[in-house]
Amino acid sequence: MAEKTWVRMVTAQTPTNIAVIKYWGKRDETLILPVNDSISVTLDPAHLCTTTTVAVSPSFDQDRMWLNGKEISLSGGRYQNCLREIRARACEVEDKEKGIKIAKKDWEKLHLHVASYNNFPTAAGLASSAAGFACLVFALAKLMNAKEDNSELSAIARQGSGSACRSLFGGFVKWIMGKAEDGSDSLAVQLVDEKHWDELVIIIAVVSSRQKETSSTTGMRDSVETSLLLQHRAKEVVPKRIKQMEEAIKNRDFGSFAQLSCADSNQFHAVCLDTCPPIFYMNGTSHRIISCVEKWNCSEGTPQPLSFVVDFLCEK
Amino acid sequence: MAEKTWVRMVTAQTPTNIAVIKYWGKRDETLILPVNDSISVTLDPAHLCTTTTVAVSPSFDQDRMWLNGKEISLSGGRYQNCLREIRARACEVEDKEKGIKIAKKDWEKLHLHVASYNNFPTAAGLASSAAGFACLVFALAKLMNAKEDNSELSAIARQGSGSACRSLFGGFVKWIMGKAEDGSDSLAVQLVDEKHWDELVIIIAVVSSRQKETSSTTGMRDSVETSLLLQHRAKEVVPKRIKQMEEAIKNRDFGSFAQLSCADSNQFHAVCLDTCPPIFYMNGTSHRIISCVEKWNCSEGTPQPLSFVVDFLCEK
Repeated sequence: MAEKTWVRMVTAQTPTNIAVIKYWGKRDETLILPVNDSISVTLDPAHLCTTTTVAVSPSFDQDRMWLNGKEISLSGGRYQNCLREIRARACEVEDKEKGIKIAKKDWEKLHLHVASYNNFPTAAGLASSAAGFACLVFALAKLMNAKEDNSELSAIARQGSGSACRSLFGGFVKWIMGKAEDGSDSLAVQLVDEKHWDELVIIIAVVSSRQKETSSTTGMRDSVETSLLLQHRAKEVVPKRIKQMEEAIKNRDFGSFAQLSCADSNQFHAVCLDTCPPIFYMNGTSHRIISCVEKWNCSEGTPQPLSFVVDFLCEK
Repeated sequence: MAEKTWVRMVTAQTPTNIAVIKYWGKRDETLILPVNDSISVTLDPAHLCTTTTVAVSPSFDQDRMWLNGKEISLSGGRYQNCLREIRARACEVEDKEKGIKIAKKDWEKLHLHVASYNNFPTAAGLASSAAGFACLVFALAKLMNAKEDNSELSAIARQGSGSACRSLFGGFVKWIMGKAEDGSDSLAVQLVDEKHWDELVIIIAVVSSRQKETSSTTGMRDSVETSLLLQHRAKEVVPKRIKQMEEAIKNRDFGSFAQLSCADSNQFHAVCLDTCPPIFYMNGTSHRIISCVEKWNCSEGTPQPLSFVVDFLCEK
C-alpha cells in the first residue's frame, strides 16, 4: 500500500503561436500532415500561454484531464495518439529523495492526471489547442524522462493539433510539411530564436471572444474537399512565400515581413470564403482594422512599424 | 434658323443584370476585355432599371449628360469610346412628319444630350453602370438608326462598362471573353430568353445602400496586379463552371444552378480578399444571410426553392 501513495508531477508552460505563413488543409487527417509548410512566431509566454501539470501515481486508476478546471474526455484520437507516442518513448525515472522508481515497462500500466489552463480565450482563433498540445507533450516527456529533442517531440504534438508542433520553440518556427507517408519528417524547426528580432511587438486585437462557429478541423476538411483555390495556394503560392518569408526574417526586413504576413493571412481567409459552405473568420471590426492599417501604410508609402495585421480572433 | 429648332429624341429602358458566373479582372483596360467568360441573369425592367433619353438637335452646341438629374462630364474615355463607336455606325435618318432629315455625315457635327435615371442605388454593387451603358448605347443606336444587332451593340456597350454588354438581352446571357486583340469577338449572346425559366425569382437584399469604397474598376485592376489566385480562377476554374452553368440553365436544374452561383460568388469575394489591399464587398449582414441560407439548405439536404445567394449590395 505504501507504494501507492506517491505522486510525481511536472508543470510546464507553453506559449501560443501565430502563423505568418498559414497552415490550412491536411493531406492526412489522422496523422495531421499539412498540404504546405508554414511559419509562425511564438508569443511571449508571459502573455498568452497554457500551463499544464501532469501527474502520475500508482493510486490513479484511469487517465483523466481537466481543461480550465472542467474535466474533459481523453478518449479522442488526438489525445490517445499523443499519450501512446509519449508512453512508447518513456524511460526509467528514479527520484531517490522521494523514494520513487518507475521502470520503463511500468509506464504502460501507470495512469496520468492532467490539469491544463489557458490564460486566454479557448477555441477563439488564438491557437489554444496549439499551446495546449505542445505543453501536454512537453510536460509528459519531462515526466516520463523521454530523451527526444524538441523537434522530435514536435512530431508528436503535431498529432494532437497540427500547429502545436510550432509551439515547442520560441522565436520564429517553421513546420516542414514533410514527404513521408508515416509523417515522421513532418516536424517543426526553429528558424531563429526569440532574441533575433526582439524589437518586434505583436498586438492582438480581440474583436470577439466567442468560440468559433466552424472549428479549424471541420473548416480545413471542408476547404480541402470543396475549395478550388486551396491546392493552387498550397502548391504554387506558399512554397515561394516560405522562401521569401525566411529571407525577410533572417534580414529583419520589416517591409517584406509585413507585406507577406498580410497577404498570406488574407489568402487564408480567401480560401475559407471559397469553401462550401463558406467560412467567415473575420467580422466588420476585423475589416475596419485591416482597412485602417492599409490606409496608414499607403499614406506613408511603406509598412509602418508594427502596422501589419497577422491574425484575428474569430468572430461569431 | 428654322432648321435649328427641331429635336429628335429616343427613350430606352434597360434592366441591370446580376452575374451568376462572375466577371472580375480585365486583360485589356482600355478595350475592357475580361480574363474569363461570365454568365448573368437580366432582371425584370419593372424592378431595377435605367431609363435613358437621348436627344439630338442642331441647336445643341456640345455633348452633355445628366445622371439622376445632375450633370456629369462626358469627357471620360469610356463615354467617348461609346459615342465614337456609335457615331461611326450612324445612318441616315428621315422623319418626314417632323421635317427632319439627318444625313450620315451630319452625325459627326451634331451634338447630343443624354438624361439617364436609375431607379436603384448607383455604384452600390447593383451594376448601375451595366444598365446605364447598355441603355445609352441602345438608345443612341436607335436615335442614329444604326443597323447593328444587339450582340454587335453589346461589344460597344462593353467599352463603357464590361458587364453592360450583358444587359442588351433579357433572360440568361453569356459574355464571351473572345480572343481577338481588338476586342471584336468579346461580346454578349443570349443563352435563353426570359420565358425559359420564368418561375425563377431573384430576391435582392439591400444590406447597405452606401457607395462602394472600392470601385469595380480600381478593385479589378488591383486584383489582376496582386492576387495570386485570380489567374488560376480565370484559367482553371471558370471555364469548367461556365459549361456546368450553361447545362444547369438549359435543364432548369435549380440544385446545380444554386450551387454554382453561390460557389462562384464566394470565389469572386475570395479573390477580392486575396487582393492587396484587400477588398471587402460583404459585411456582417451579408455573412449572416449566407449562413442562414446555407443552414437551411443543409438541413433540408438540397438547395431550397429561391434559397441561394448570388450577390449583395456592397457595404461601406
